[in-house]
Amino acid sequence: MFDPVEKLKEFVRFPSISTDSQFRDGMKGAQEFVAGLLGSLGFKVEVVKTELHPIIFAQREGDPSWPHVVIYGHYDVQPADPLELWKTPAFEPTIIGSRIYGRGTADNKGPLMTNITAVAQLLEANPKIPLRITFLIEGEEEMGSPSFPKFLERYADKLREADFVYLSDTALPNAEQVVITCGLRGLALFDVHITGAKSDLHSGLHGGVLLNPIQALAEILASLHTPDGRVNVPGFYDDVLDVHPWEREELKKLGGDEKAYAEFLGIDHFYTTSGFSPFESVRFQPTLEINGIGGGYQGEGTKTVIPSKAFAKLSCRLVPNQQPDRIKKLVMDTIRARTPKAVKVAFVDQHKGDPYIVVPPDRSNTPKDQSPVLARAFRATDQAVAEIWGRPPVYLREGGSVPIIAEIKRVTGLDSVMFGLFLPEDNLHAPNEGFSLEVMKKGIETTRRILAAVAKVPRPRGT
Amino acid sequence: MFDPVEKLKEFVRFPSISTDSQFRDGMKGAQEFVAGLLGSLGFKVEVVKTELHPIIFAQREGDPSWPHVVIYGHYDVQPADPLELWKTPAFEPTIIGSRIYGRGTADNKGPLMTNITAVAQLLEANPKIPLRITFLIEGEEEMGSPSFPKFLERYADKLREADFVYLSDTALPNAEQVVITCGLRGLALFDVHITGAKSDLHSGLHGGVLLNPIQALAEILASLHTPDGRVNVPGFYDDVLDVHPWEREELKKLGGDEKAYAEFLGIDHFYTTSGFSPFESVRFQPTLEINGIGGGYQGEGTKTVIPSKAFAKLSCRLVPNQQPDRIKKLVMDTIRARTPKAVKVAFVDQHKGDPYIVVPPDRSNTPKDQSPVLARAFRATDQAVAEIWGRPPVYLREGGSVPIIAEIKRVTGLDSVMFGLFLPEDNLHAPNEGFSLEVMKKGIETTRRILAAVAKVPRPRGT
Repeated sequence: MFDPVEKLKEFVRFPSISTDSQFRDGMKGAQEFVAGLLGSLGFKVEVVKTELHPIIFAQREGDPSWPHVVIYGHYDVQPADPLELWKTPAFEPTIIGSRIYGRGTADNKGPLMTNITAVAQLLEANPKIPLRITFLIEGEEEMGSPSFPKFLERYADKLREADFVYLSDTALPNAEQVVITCGLRGLALFDVHITGAKSDLHSGLHGGVLLNPIQALAEILASLHTPDGRVNVPGFYDDVLDVHPWEREELKKLGGDEKAYAEFLGIDHFYTTSGFSPFESVRFQPTLEINGIGGGYQGEGTKTVIPSKAFAKLSCRLVPNQQPDRIKKLVMDTIRARTPKAVKVAFVDQHKGDPYIVVPPDRSNTPKDQSPVLARAFRATDQAVAEIWGRPPVYLREGGSVPIIAEIKRVTGLDSVMFGLFLPEDNLHAPNEGFSLEVMKKGIETTRRILAAVAKVPRPRGT
Repeated sequence: MFDPVEKLKEFVRFPSISTDSQFRDGMKGAQEFVAGLLGSLGFKVEVVKTELHPIIFAQREGDPSWPHVVIYGHYDVQPADPLELWKTPAFEPTIIGSRIYGRGTADNKGPLMTNITAVAQLLEANPKIPLRITFLIEGEEEMGSPSFPKFLERYADKLREADFVYLSDTALPNAEQVVITCGLRGLALFDVHITGAKSDLHSGLHGGVLLNPIQALAEILASLHTPDGRVNVPGFYDDVLDVHPWEREELKKLGGDEKAYAEFLGIDHFYTTSGFSPFESVRFQPTLEINGIGGGYQGEGTKTVIPSKAFAKLSCRLVPNQQPDRIKKLVMDTIRARTPKAVKVAFVDQHKGDPYIVVPPDRSNTPKDQSPVLARAFRATDQAVAEIWGRPPVYLREGGSVPIIAEIKRVTGLDSVMFGLFLPEDNLHAPNEGFSLEVMKKGIETTRRILAAVAKVPRPRGT
């Protein structure tokens, strides 16, 4: 049996930055490392070519009656710059106390190695365990998974044979309290462009004659919220899923500290959707956010120009059961209707993602048709977490989006068990990324127990 | 007597770009050329050092009883790029038909040479003419005249001895109709900065919790106008000078074509201050314009960020008798009062300039204390223009700002006669700048006659 920490170090040494073609060797090294490791565990490894970085699809096959888990992860990492802010070399994993530092230690190489190790231990202890396991490890997660939809289409039939997806690419609020993420927000993104005159104009020679497109844009954007923090677009909230009482109960268990949160953000006042606390608003309510705005002169000093154009980049975070295309249409139609006739409006569509929710069993609104294997996985998670971490997990929707989770659900029908392993201090996407070896150790044990429990579940006949 | 067209060519060949230190030789050449030419006409030339480009102060002195005119101009030009759009070399003056092409031919070397030639002809015809003339030719006009205020302070006493300023650095609407600019708008500029959280935040993890500073900025900016196009800042219009009926009459003579203007701007609908036509609004009403806006992610694709900061660059064009400092305070106070408490606001002050108005004699509101020399200059202008151009000039306030004109008035009390010589087709600040030789010829004759008439006016005693 390999030493998981040594294996993780080996993994982290590959600078697998997917967005930068200078790191092609690092990407190749990380990909071959994972493929080799899974091969050595007896997996049938397929390296699926994509337009950019291959996806590793590794199977432990077995009798069709055996339960089947798909373990997701990614071998690519964020760029490491600004390098000068790192206290240890970004790609030379360094252990200080009970933590390991290096780019990708938390996102996602550490959590992925946790799950691979759990599988290795499970198979070593019981080589004949009746469990089918498929590893699905992509190399483009940090770029927004551009090749994933095409892959998903090609492998949909194989994936449909599985029972659920298991992954560790979400957060742990602190080292004592495990959170199982059971919902993610969706996304609907587009840009709005306002055009006034056909070119930039002298604000003296022509000021007072025409509508400045920045002013028009400001008026439109200002109209998109009501003073109580709700999105002021007719129909925007029509499909929003009610928050179930058990969700509020779970949230209470987390005991969020609003004052500490405000301090962390550096704000004096929250601004939430009316009727929701900050911790509720971010999880249960949709948003319409202006991610960027630009127009006219932005340099030093002044330039007395009436610009010809202005734009804003908008994104909506969506909650179940909002549909990205419907929301885009509603917001665009509203903007179009509110655009003053003295300027022109145009849109540039950007990407989108469905919101996602999976309801653990025994919750008030658990769908009747939930797979018994998935239900067992949740129950096993409850039990293993309670035993290993000292208290049961909390089930919470998160404010963020992992579009592939909703996409897998949409294409294959598979739900996901999202077991978070990275801590707030792990500095994801930032200098001095690190990962707790204590969390890793507990994570290996938890995942091993969950998978062992899942293996015992007979599949329903005929599937 | 020199050939004015040949002299202009010589002048244009110096690439006197004040903003670019690569063109130091061009600046020096143009400055020495002007100083030499004025010296050869018998002027006592002083090259006044500044922190950057010298100011030429050249005097034809005489008996204190003689009228005294200050002729203003500038020897620096705009940069010539993009060079590839020029049909003839930017600094090799080229005559095509009755027009001369080259950077600076219209702004301001052609009009300045027009006035120098008029003086040369006047002095050649009548070497003893009882007229004191001071040329004041700066080299930093295209940079916003940074050295001018200090110069003005030092030379205030000398300038106070004069009767008025004469310049040709404004526009001619067409080759038939002379416009004397009798008013300019002032300026008040500053930036507004809005700050939300202490750093950019993930719009998924934190969206729905805090006020986005772009949204706050949009709400503030949207509040600064009423739907009828007026600036929605209490007190903004308090000091606005009423438009006098003669001003509307003069404007009517110009016969502006609104449809053609809208086509030129490339707009379908005007947006003017309520109750004013486009041509009136730009001349008689103040504005509050957003010259630039920026915040968050402005690149390709998307970045789902809640930015920490957003800013806008604002400028007000002011009309007589608005005061820039008072207007800045009113707008800043209003913005401060309208800033939501969930974000912070700060201002960066930029420059300012007073509005300016001079009322030609015989107009209903001519001040009683107008200098008889200035009055004579206006009457001589009426007569000379009527004879040479076929119709009398139109007196109009313009929408633009020439801050030094108001500054000269403020410091020395001198008013200006602004005789425009460049045509819409002259492409100021753009490739293929040109100047009409026919306009130059008529301009020389007009200025010569105006100055000759001014010379005959006895100064009031005791001044």
